Amino acid sequence: MAVLKFDEVKATTVREGVDRKLIHTNNLMSVVIDFTNGPWAEPEPTHSHVHEQISYVASGEIIFVCEGEPNQRLKAGDMFSVPSGKQHGIQLLTPTARLVDNFNPIRAEFL
Amino acid sequence: MAVLKFDEVKATTVREGVDRKLIHTNNLMSVVIDFTNGPWAEPEPTHSHVHEQISYVASGEIIFVCEGEPNQRLKAGDMFSVPSGKQHGIQLLTPTARLVDNFNPIRAEFL
Repeated sequence: MAVLKFDEVKATTVREGVDRKLIHTNNLMSVVIDFTNGPWAEPEPTHSHVHEQISYVASGEIIFVCEGEPNQRLKAGDMFSVPSGKQHGIQLLTPTARLVDNFNPIRAEFL
Repeated sequence: MAVLKFDEVKATTVREGVDRKLIHTNNLMSVVIDFTNGPWAEPEPTHSHVHEQISYVASGEIIFVCEGEPNQRLKAGDMFSVPSGKQHGIQLLTPTARLVDNFNPIRAEFL
């Protein structure tokens, strides 16, 4: 699939209030995640994966939590990166938010 | 750099009306490109690179041109992907637009 036209693709519900749509090439995957269950009282439990990750905050505000680093408050237009294997997570500060999560290699479990 | 706080980073001017800010890990690079020189009367000349690319249209409207495929009109929230080596380009339809271009491997020439 060469394009993802947002309005034409059905979202996958990850859990209540968390929907995603994705596109990928052989080694690159981009996932639009729409959160509608904020704000959260505390950060989600951190997790890790071998995949490198860079995320773009398309809307809303979050706290980015990453192992060994100070928490960072981020808003629309900001980005965060996660090296392979590093524990990380977010806390949603606004009622809704959109992240665009980019991964290398692709998250095969999302397909 | 684990985060890019948009307001705190100086943009690199690619050419008049095209500014970028970027963040990367070892194998993944994300580039926020702000266009302020639209609309364009026609598409830019196509180009190619070995890097796989996925782009998120953060604002504005574009036509996505890709070798061997029909042109696609895309707006905020849409995405396009480009396999390694494939000719591609865009035409800006709005006065301003923002793309978030993601690459694997990193575009070393952007550093």
